[in-house]
Parts: sequence; structure tokens; C-alpha cells
Amino acid sequence: MDYSEYSENREYFKKLIDEKNLKELKSTMAEMNVVDIAEIIEDFDDKTMLLIFRMLPKEMGADVFSYMEMYNKLRIVNSITDEELRSILEELYFDDMIDVLEEMPANVVTKVLKNSTPDTRKLVNEFLRYPEDSAGSIMTIEYVSLRPEMTVKEALQYIKTTGIDKETIYTCYVENEYKMLLGFVSLRTIVISDENELIKNIMTDDVIFVNTLDDQEVVADKFTRYGYLALPVVDGEHRLCGIITFDDILDIVEEEATEDFHKMAAINPSDDEYLDQTPWQLAKNRIPWLLILMISATVTGHIVDRFNGIISQFIILTTFIPMITDTGGNCGAQSSTVVIRAMATGEITMADALKVIFKEMRVGLIAGAVLSVVNFLRVILFTSSSPRIAFLISFTVFFTVVFSKFLGALLPLFAKRVNIDPAIMASAVITTIIDSAALLIYFAMAEIFLKVV
Amino acid sequence: MDYSEYSENREYFKKLIDEKNLKELKSTMAEMNVVDIAEIIEDFDDKTMLLIFRMLPKEMGADVFSYMEMYNKLRIVNSITDEELRSILEELYFDDMIDVLEEMPANVVTKVLKNSTPDTRKLVNEFLRYPEDSAGSIMTIEYVSLRPEMTVKEALQYIKTTGIDKETIYTCYVENEYKMLLGFVSLRTIVISDENELIKNIMTDDVIFVNTLDDQEVVADKFTRYGYLALPVVDGEHRLCGIITFDDILDIVEEEATEDFHKMAAINPSDDEYLDQTPWQLAKNRIPWLLILMISATVTGHIVDRFNGIISQFIILTTFIPMITDTGGNCGAQSSTVVIRAMATGEITMADALKVIFKEMRVGLIAGAVLSVVNFLRVILFTSSSPRIAFLISFTVFFTVVFSKFLGALLPLFAKRVNIDPAIMASAVITTIIDSAALLIYFAMAEIFLKVV
Repeated sequence: MDYSEYSENREYFKKLIDEKNLKELKSTMAEMNVVDIAEIIEDFDDKTMLLIFRMLPKEMGADVFSYMEMYNKLRIVNSITDEELRSILEELYFDDMIDVLEEMPANVVTKVLKNSTPDTRKLVNEFLRYPEDSAGSIMTIEYVSLRPEMTVKEALQYIKTTGIDKETIYTCYVENEYKMLLGFVSLRTIVISDENELIKNIMTDDVIFVNTLDDQEVVADKFTRYGYLALPVVDGEHRLCGIITFDDILDIVEEEATEDFHKMAAINPSDDEYLDQTPWQLAKNRIPWLLILMISATVTGHIVDRFNGIISQFIILTTFIPMITDTGGNCGAQSSTVVIRAMATGEITMADALKVIFKEMRVGLIAGAVLSVVNFLRVILFTSSSPRIAFLISFTVFFTVVFSKFLGALLPLFAKRVNIDPAIMASAVITTIIDSAALLIYFAMAEIFLKVV
Repeated sequence: MDYSEYSENREYFKKLIDEKNLKELKSTMAEMNVVDIAEIIEDFDDKTMLLIFRMLPKEMGADVFSYMEMYNKLRIVNSITDEELRSILEELYFDDMIDVLEEMPANVVTKVLKNSTPDTRKLVNEFLRYPEDSAGSIMTIEYVSLRPEMTVKEALQYIKTTGIDKETIYTCYVENEYKMLLGFVSLRTIVISDENELIKNIMTDDVIFVNTLDDQEVVADKFTRYGYLALPVVDGEHRLCGIITFDDILDIVEEEATEDFHKMAAINPSDDEYLDQTPWQLAKNRIPWLLILMISATVTGHIVDRFNGIISQFIILTTFIPMITDTGGNCGAQSSTVVIRAMATGEITMADALKVIFKEMRVGLIAGAVLSVVNFLRVILFTSSSPRIAFLISFTVFFTVVFSKFLGALLPLFAKRVNIDPAIMASAVITTIIDSAALLIYFAMAEIFLKVV
């Protein structure tokens, strides 16, 4: 559904509600994709949203709910009866239910759990204890578990009867009596195998798995690497606790990239979406780094200050300060971005460190040569400055480019080596160091070059 | 396989080869995951790589090959016989084969195709004509196609006999006699349905699809939005041409994010991996923007130049130039990064433009107030400057923060509106405009504030 389709559908919903034509609304929604319905009803006010939501065919309610933004889920939760809430939560997949419970006030959670079985309560409480963004916190318990001694025919029959409530039936996991993970077998293999074959003979023993406490970034990396539909999650005793399916991974890959974008722009990452955050929350995540960077930029100021003798003699020097620091900043940002991103996607590892630094230095030599020649010509041709000044500027640009390429490659690798997040390192220190070094060489050379005049 | 496992395996491979214990090597590989094997053999020299590759059990060869980096695939292609090459290409899924053929020199492609059937030749040539990064260029033709009047039993039997060569059997597509796409049905639905039910009664008509010419970004967005395992690709007449499976999408989502990272760091994006590029290629993608930004930074220089009267009177003013321009750059980068990323993930659309700009301005007011107060105190307490200078700096910082937050939000939205890539807009103009505006207000206010002394 693109934007024009979206507004068209939204108008149509509005019209039906204004005309109180709820029968037509109901049958329209029955034909629509749940993702699209979720998007449309989120835009209505509380009362209308609830009205539409209650019009949904029973089996679609929980599905639509699961695709709504958390903020809007809570709007629904706060308006419906306890009975309705329990019935929605029961229909949700376990991982989606946990997501909702995590965001709800404790008293609501208690109320919801009061009416469920002791087993469910125990399981929910266990899940709520997994650390945020861990594999345990995103896994689901609705998987197909087979026994090694089942035949293909028995397995298919078992899948047929229990499969409807499972998040995926395409990868089935084989457990022993102690719930230890023995292997996995895809539905494809089951379907194309002889019906009397034993599961243990067609399963794959070399299982790729994650641990309950692994970070979601580790999970996403394994998915990207191996291309599986689902990964099993095991505890310390190699007992199968749940599975994570590929559809949750796309969101995580995007989330992780967003986090890196924010960190590299000197913002403390937040789990909340932009539109859900107040200006105060947004400001709170940005001000600390702005302050740190502002204070550290005064170091650069001190360098300028230290050279005010030569500056007052040659005011023209100040004209080139923004160009020199900006060029250094841009070169450093290019190198650090490339290196940080290549480390994040796994293309570069610590084993490549020297190769990368050496490569960036050669890029710096090439770029530095081009930029300093262009600069020399520009200063000579388009300003009234002397060749001496032009040479000074060119030399500074060359030095700045090479140095900032070198530093832009070195610092993220160094950060990784000492277990600091490279993305944070990038925003915090690179600009300040480059600015200082560039201005130091600029004015120091100026004193040598120009004092003789 | 983590890094230590990797080095261990690599050492073990080396040992077996040195000892010429190829039998053991063969049986070790038979137990390993193909992704892991691909990673290990890539690190050996041409001769050893080929030796290990030829030791692979026949059915694993093409699989391992498909997981290798393109550069290493070509190393293999250049060393094996035409006969071996043809047998590998035949085993590959169609989309992987096209990927390889796209990278091979034209004469090799002709040689390979000479021995294939006219049908295959025609198909390959058709695929090679799809634009780079279009849905057509990444789709595969190995999908399960069912007819509406088949029964569940017939469908299952058909899948059982033809499924082994399909890239996925979990989503089956229903076509009429003219190859027009009518609907889809999941293997899950087929497995849990009664065996006499007709496919047309259990299929979903509301198919989400992409067009052969859609960009891969559109494809990735649909996957993220709807969470499907596979999407059908249709031509202008709604005929089914192929499918794209989720495992190709994870790579694309990462690629698209990497492209944005690079653009925002003022680098022309490249399809090649970092380690595959020479310093010359890397420099070529970076120098154009560095030149543009360097030249545009001279605008800022002209502004400084225009105020050299007040500067020569108050040299202290130059001390604060780096701090003011850096703070403006950081504030602008924060806002533009957040807005660009939220547009890329689909959280923000043009409908939210005014809300976003207004929100960023409020963030600017908060951050500007905090930063200017801290600055005032810092200048008063830790420098010998007069309160008048302190006030001037504070005022400039406040103005700069508010303005750069506003501009950082406005420009990407404006770029999107006029169909310029927001990520490119961010790197190209924001810093220059912010620097100029900040210094203009700084010196203009300085003339007013300080001239009266």
C-alpha cells in the first residue's frame, strides 16, 4: 500500500464511519492486509480507533494489534475491558505478548496474569526477567519440537495437528527427553522424504544456535551469515528455550543500523521511535555530547589563542580557518564512517587492521595531493594572497588530509581493540584531534614561513 | 563460528594439507557448514584453494561456491576447466548463477552459454538486461507454481516431486494458463488443510508483489513491512516472472544502510566491498565531495574576510571560531541524521514534515538554552574575557543551535520533496550554510556590541 492508496483507504474508512455503515466497514477490512489496517486505524482518535478495532473479524483482532506501534497498543489496552484484553493476549504469539506486557504498568500486568494458569504466569515472569535486547527477550516459545525416533509420517501428522499455533513450522527442532537440542529438520526435508524414514536419520546435527543471554546484534549477525529462517535459543545446559524467526530480524538489523547512525551523529541512542519522544527526551539524548564536544572544541580555541601574535600580523590567516578544519573533519568522517560500517557488517575484523590503516593512508596521500594542488591554484588565481601564503595553505591541507585519513581509520580500530564502541569514539574525539592538529601545523608553519618577511 | 573457532579450523585445514591427509580433509568438510567452509578456503592461495574446493563432496561444491565473495568466485572460475564451471553453474540457483555471469568477462559468458540449451541462453540474456539493483536482477525463477483447480493432495504430490530444486517451497504461487499471478498459498496452509480441498479455495488473493523494474530498496521496504518469506515479481502484464526470498533481503537492507552511511559521510557509494577496492578507486569516490565542500567552505572564509576590521581590533574573537562552527555542525548533523534515518526506515513521511520541523525547533530551543548558559559561565569563569564578550558568544551559540536544528530538519525534508537524495543533501550543503550563518551573526553582533567600546 503506497501513500496514495493509504489516504484513499483512510478517507473511505472515515466515510463509512460518518455514515455509520459498519457492515461495509467490516467486510472491507476482512479483505484487507492486517498490516495496512493497523496503519490506518492508528490515525484515528481513541474512540473511533476502538470502534474500528471492535469491528474487526475476531481472528484478525490480535493480528492487527500485533502490527500497531507500541504507543497505539497502549491506547487500545487502556480502553478495552479486562476480558477483551485477555482474549487478545491469548491470541498473540508469545513473543508479541511479552513485548506488550513489558510496556504495561505493573498493576495491569498483575491483573492480566491473575486469571491465567500458574504455568503461564511462571513462564511470563521468567521472560520478563531476560535483559533488554537479549535473545531471550525476543524469542518465542511457539515452535515445533519433534523426537528423534518419530517417523516422517508421524512427524507430519503431529505438525498438522499442532502446527496452527506455531510461529513457524518450516524449521522443526529435535529434542531428547530432557529438552536438550539434538538437531533440526526443515519441513521441506520432511515433505520430500519417505514417510517411513526416522527423523533422526534426516535431521541436521550441526545446529547453529544462540544463547538466551546473547545480544540481539549477535543474533542478527548469525541470521545474516547463515540465511536460516529461524534460529534456536538455548540455555546454559543446551536446553531448547525458544526460537527467533527471520521476520523479527529485519527490524533488528534496521534498529542496529539506526543506533549506529545516531551514535555517529553524537546522539545517545534510544529504544523509542522519534515521533513518540517529546522534545525534552530528544534534547536529553543530544545535549551531553554537544556539551562535551563544545568544551573540547575550546582546546582548539586555545591553540588559536596561543598564536595570536602571527594572526594579528596576518589577519588573512583567519580566512582559511573554516576551510582547513572543515576539510579535516570531512576527510576524517569519510574514513571513520567506512571503517566503522565495515566492522559493523563484519567485512573488516581486527585481523585486517594494519591493511586498513595502510590503505587509508594511501587514499590520504592521493586525496591530499589533489586537494592541495587545487587549493594552491585557487589561492593564487582567485585571491590577492602571495605565493607564500598559497604554499602555506596547500601544505596545511595536504598534511591535514593525510593525518585525518590516518586518524579516521586508526581510532575506530583502536576503540574496538579496547572494547569501546567505535561509533561513539568517532563522534567524541576525532574532530577535536583533527582540528587541533591541523591548526597547530597551520600556525606553526605560518610562523616559520611568514616571520622572515 | 566465531574468530577462535575460525582460526582453529583454518590451522587444522593447513595441517591436513601439509600432511597430504586429503581423506581426513574430505570427511571433516562433509560435517561442516558450507558458510564456514567458504570463509576458510577463501584465505588460501589459488592453488590450495582449488585443491580444497575439488576435495568437496560433489553436492556441496556449488553451495560453498555460492557463499564465497565475488572476488574469490572469479579466482575459482579462472582456474577450473570449462566442464567443471558448467557443472557448478548448473547446480547454482538461477539468481546466484546470474550474479556470477554478470561479473565474468563477456568471452567467458559466451563460452559457458555455448553448451547450454537455447531456452536457458534466452533466459540468461533476458536476466542480464535487467537494470542493476532492480527486482528483476535479484529474483530467482525457481519457485513452486500451482494451478487454482489442483487439490491439496495433488499440490503436495507436485511439491514433493519438483520441490527439491526450488529456492523455497514454503510459499507457492498460483498462476492461470497465461502465467498471470492469481494468488499465493503457504505450505503451512496446504499441510493443515483437508487433502481434497481445492487450492483456489485456500489461496490468498490479496497478493503483495513487486515489479521487475522496482528498485531493491522498494523490495526491502515491502519485506520489512509485511514480514513475508518471499515476494513474487511480476511484469507489466501482471505475469509472474520470479520470486525474491527473504535471505537475499537481509543483505540488501545492510547494503542500503551502508550506502546511506557513505553518502552522509560525503562518499559516492560503490557496489564493491571495501577490501576489494584499490586506494585509487576509494579516492575517486571521495575526492569530488571533498573538493566541493572545500570550495564551498571558502564562502565561509569570505565572511570572515569581510569582517577583518573587527577581528583585527579584537583578535580574541578568532579563538571562538572553531567552537562555534563545530557546535553548529554537530547540532545540524544530529537533526539531519535523525530525520534522514527516520525517512529511510519509513517512520517519517512527508505528512509529518511540519510536525518534525516544529519538534526539532523546540529541541533547538532547549539545547540552545543549556549550551549558551554553560558557555557564558565558562567564558566568565575560565577566560579573561569581558562579560560583553561572554554575552556575545552565548548569544551566537544560542542562535547557531536553534538555526542548525531547524535547518538540519528542513533540508532533508525539502530534498525528499524535490526528489533529491536526502543523504546527499545532508553532506553537501548543511555544514556550509550553518557555518556561514553562524559566523555572519557572530561578527555582525560583534560589530554592534563591541564597536561602542
